[in-house]
This record gives sequence, C-alpha cells and structure tokens, in this order.
Amino acid sequence: MASLPTSVPDVLARYREPLEHALRAAVGDDPPALAAAARYVLGWEDEHGRPAHNMGKRIRPALCLLGAEVAGGTIEDAMPGACAVELVHNFSLVHDEVQDHDAERHHRPTLWALLGEAQAINAGDFLFTRAVQALSDAPGDPGRRMAALGVLNRAIQAMIGGQWEDLDFERRESVHVEEYLAMVAGKTGALLAAPLEMGALLAGAEVAFAAGLGAWGKQVGLAFQAQDDYLGTWGDPGDTGKSNSNDIARKKKTLPIVYGMDDADARAVIAEAYDTGGDVGAAAIVRVVSALEDAGADVACREMAAGYAHEADALLDGLGLPEGTRTLLREVARYLVDRAG
Amino acid sequence: MASLPTSVPDVLARYREPLEHALRAAVGDDPPALAAAARYVLGWEDEHGRPAHNMGKRIRPALCLLGAEVAGGTIEDAMPGACAVELVHNFSLVHDEVQDHDAERHHRPTLWALLGEAQAINAGDFLFTRAVQALSDAPGDPGRRMAALGVLNRAIQAMIGGQWEDLDFERRESVHVEEYLAMVAGKTGALLAAPLEMGALLAGAEVAFAAGLGAWGKQVGLAFQAQDDYLGTWGDPGDTGKSNSNDIARKKKTLPIVYGMDDADARAVIAEAYDTGGDVGAAAIVRVVSALEDAGADVACREMAAGYAHEADALLDGLGLPEGTRTLLREVARYLVDRAG
Repeated sequence: MASLPTSVPDVLARYREPLEHALRAAVGDDPPALAAAARYVLGWEDEHGRPAHNMGKRIRPALCLLGAEVAGGTIEDAMPGACAVELVHNFSLVHDEVQDHDAERHHRPTLWALLGEAQAINAGDFLFTRAVQALSDAPGDPGRRMAALGVLNRAIQAMIGGQWEDLDFERRESVHVEEYLAMVAGKTGALLAAPLEMGALLAGAEVAFAAGLGAWGKQVGLAFQAQDDYLGTWGDPGDTGKSNSNDIARKKKTLPIVYGMDDADARAVIAEAYDTGGDVGAAAIVRVVSALEDAGADVACREMAAGYAHEADALLDGLGLPEGTRTLLREVARYLVDRAG
Repeated sequence: MASLPTSVPDVLARYREPLEHALRAAVGDDPPALAAAARYVLGWEDEHGRPAHNMGKRIRPALCLLGAEVAGGTIEDAMPGACAVELVHNFSLVHDEVQDHDAERHHRPTLWALLGEAQAINAGDFLFTRAVQALSDAPGDPGRRMAALGVLNRAIQAMIGGQWEDLDFERRESVHVEEYLAMVAGKTGALLAAPLEMGALLAGAEVAFAAGLGAWGKQVGLAFQAQDDYLGTWGDPGDTGKSNSNDIARKKKTLPIVYGMDDADARAVIAEAYDTGGDVGAAAIVRVVSALEDAGADVACREMAAGYAHEADALLDGLGLPEGTRTLLREVARYLVDRAG
C-alpha cells in the first residue's frame, strides 16, 4: 500500500501516461478506417486525422486502476480492465450520439455527424469488440480476466437498459423521480461502479471486497449524475463543455424536470413547453428554468448529490480499509461530483 | 466419435432442441423490454409478443456444436459458444437492418421498423452483451472459454470491417472483384469460420486443429456468399424469403454487379441505372439483370461458389479426419451452399 497515491490529481497524473499508451495498443490499427474513427473518438486525432489532444477525463479507467491499488495490486494487473472500460464508455457515447442526434460533444463534431449514422454504429460496435479483446488477449490468469469481463458486461447491460428507459422517457407524459433514478443507476452508475470491482478482481481480491468497492462506486455515480443533471441546466458551458439549454430544448426528462413535475406550477410550465412540436424555444426554456427554480429543483438536485455522496461514505466505512485509503477514496468521490459535466 | 451424426438433417435435428433451450436461457428476461426485443429477433415471438416459430436455420451454432463433435468433444462442451455465435449473428442482423434501412426480413418487419432506429441499436448492443455473457458465465475451464471468446471477437471485428466496406462500396463508382471478395470474407465468412474453431477449442482441441477447421469454414462461407449473391438476383423469393430485385434497387454492389463492371456493355447499363437519384426502377432493374446475364455474371457466380467449395474440400483433406467425418463435413458444405439465401 506504500505506493498508493495520496491525492486525486496525483492519481490521474500517475495513471495518465501508462493508460494512454495501453489504450493506443488496445485500439490497434486494423481495420484502418475503424481504427481511425476510434482514434478520433478517443481524442487523439482531429477530424482530418491530425494529432490532437482531446482526451476526456478518463475517470472510469482511473477507477479501475485505483481499484487494483486499493486491493493491494498494481496498475499493471488492472490495465486490461482499464482499457476495456474506457473503450466501452466511448462505444456508449458513439451510439448515444446517434440515438440522441447530438451533433456536437465538447466542442467537437460527433462521429455520426462526420461519418453518417451507419458507420458510426459500426465504429461503436468496433470499440465494443476492442474492449472485449483488451481482456481476452491480456496475459494473466484467465479466470480473473473472465470474472472482470463478466462484471463489465453486466454493467454494459445495465447501461443499455438505462439508455432504453431514457429514450422511452422522452416520449412519455410523466416520469417519477424513482423511475428516473433507476434509469440513471443503469445508464451512468453501472459504468462507474464496474471499474472499481474489475480492478480489484484483476488484482486478485476477494469477490465480496470487490463487490463492496463497486457498491461504493455506484453511489458515487448517482451523486455524479445528480450533479451532472444540475449542471445540464445550471452549469456554465465554458466549464462543462456542454450546452446548458440542450436538455430542455430536446425535452429531456432530467432530474430537475422530473422533480419539477411533482410541483403543480412547474408541471404546468413544463407541459406547455414540452407539448409543442419540435425543439423547445429559447423563451420557453427561460420560463421552464425559472419555474424549476421556484419549485426548488436546483437546490434539490444538489441535496440529492450530497445525499448519495453521504451514502457512499457510509459504504466506504464498511470496507475495512486503512484510514489513508479511505481519505483518498472520499477525495475521489468529491472530485468526481465537483467535476461532473 | 461413435455419436457423430451422419447426415446434415440429422445434425440439425439433434442440435435443435438443446440449442433453442440454451439460447432462451442465454437471452434471459432482463431488462424486460430488451429481452422481449431479443425474443422477437430470435424468432420465438411475433411483434405482439405472442409465441411464434420464425427461427432461422441456426447454421452458425450448429457449426459450433459440430466443431466440438468433430474434435471428439460433446455438444455440452460447445453450447456456450453456440449460443454466443447465434446471438452475435442476430446482433449483426439488427444493426445491419438499421444501417441498410431494410424494413423487412423473411416476411417479418425488422426490429427498427417496429421500435425505431434508436431502440434497435440498443437491442443489437444488448444481444452482443448476451453473447459475451453466454461464455463468461458458463461452467468449464476459463482458459478455453476465453480462447473461444477471443476467436469470436476477432470474427466480429472482421464482420464489422466487412460491413464498413460494404457500406462504403455503395457510394463508390466502381469496386473490383478482389475488393468485393475481401469484404465478403469479413462480413460473412468470418462468422461461419469462427464457430467451428470455437467449438473445437471448447472441446479442448489443439489450437492448430481448431484453426484448420475454421479455415475450412471460411472457404465454405465464401462459397455460401457467392451463392447468396447469385440468389439475390436470380433466386426465387418464395424459396429464399428475400426480394430478388432489392439488391439492384438499392444499388448494392454485389458479386454479379462487380463482375459485370468488368464488361464494357454491362458496365454502361449498370452506370445508367445506378447514376440516377433514389432507388433503381423496375424497368432499369430488368435491363441490368439482362446485361449481367449477357456478361455471364450468373454463370460466373455459380462457378465461383463451386470453386470455393472445391478449395474447402482440399483444406478438409489436410485435417487428418476419419473418412466418415470428412464425408459429413463435405455434405455440410454442400447443404450450406445449396441453401444459401
């Protein structure tokens, strides 16, 4: 445990170079067109194939490597899992963008906007296969690798189930907060919980300990999503890289919206805006945001985020970890929630 | 080897019931909406969720079970691989239908035509995860299961690469026969070769023997595709369940078309038909088919199918199998090619 990093920036700094190196190997270069699409999505190239530096925060693979270190293993133990989870995250982004018709993410064109929907579907599928390959072709005990793949695969199923619900919510009249939270637990929580469990399993940890670490990650994921939804309406686009009007313009039923639907006044304003054809206009968006604030949705989202973070803390205390490790994981949770968006 | 089936109908009859049973377990029932979509795609239910009997020929899983038996193992050894390969085949059909905008397959609405493109993408992704799970959650040696998954996963990559090329060909002026055959080897051949290799590996066969069996399957797959392309233009829709004008109407560059492009007269007729906006009309389709026949494309396709089948025979002879097994596999090849479509 002597080598365990002591702060989140230290974690990310130590992980970044070996992770990017391993990820590039995991993407490979064949078939050429699909590998090029993957390099664009992973942020290493721009749309003309020129070198770029648009990598995301790589939170999920960092959690996988951290899971191994917390379990007393090494970064090397968990690297195939870290690559797999980041590739799966990118596969899900590519398919979500096709499904949601989002033309831009973090100020870059989305893949389907560049290649068309059909090839973007292919590129997402390709990223999924490269994730599987990262674990199937790795050295080390095949039983551990298969266990980690099983955890990842169940998380992908939960994620796809959540995405199904999310799309279904868009065409429904009303969604309850509980339904929303179940959807989010799948769509976002699963792929934040899984890497911790995978990392621990790849390091040879007991199944129960690995699952406990994953349960902590799931609560942190819910806190992250509550905060992310908050920022989707009240965040600064300059900080988050995402529009703060797109969720409402696209009639998304986010946490603020489903919370507001339980308030009679806000529900009426939301219904008026969402019942029109096409996107919600700028003036109606302003009215919806104002009604949500009057209903206390902004405060409620922040309180929910804090509540999940508190539950995560309680789970963490039950894992029997040394105080230094607990402090680090608490800092990781705070870092994730504060950086949502 | 006493239990090895002696004819192809015998093979399929013996495999069908345990295979369908295992496939239903592999699909599961959660998340409910995705599992229901999977049951429709697998042919067990109609679009209203009522019991149906629209299963495909289940050729790929039969090849996996046969691969195990040929290698001296049992159906049980290979069943997780058989389920995985059939689920992957269905995943690829669902995504291909979205990409090609095909509204019907075998006289049934395609999934996206029922659920929309976004949810069909999700359902395809779900089928992929269930394929991985069939192998990750199975009993038996994890090393063998991981090796089989590695073979399957590489086949999926080849398949996706082939699908990329196929879509790319649609927007290109001309495609050479060699490029076309490379595309087909990925898009179709890979998922006919892989199950044989997977079945042998799951039964504990030597890697070289399993790969040899897969190489035989690849040639059979090419013969199958040449025949399938022939039937796509000259087949009887009553037999094949598919339109024999859709390939040309959609301006697909099939084997007959790429062959015809090497003939000056046929090329001119194809160019005239394919250079118009929208689908190719009925009269132009008749002119294209006639020009292809004048160029000898129909005969050439059948000869290519026979040539690949012959190459498959030569590979088979090198595997050192008993004469009875060789006879059965030769019959399997003939059965596949004759039943293409």
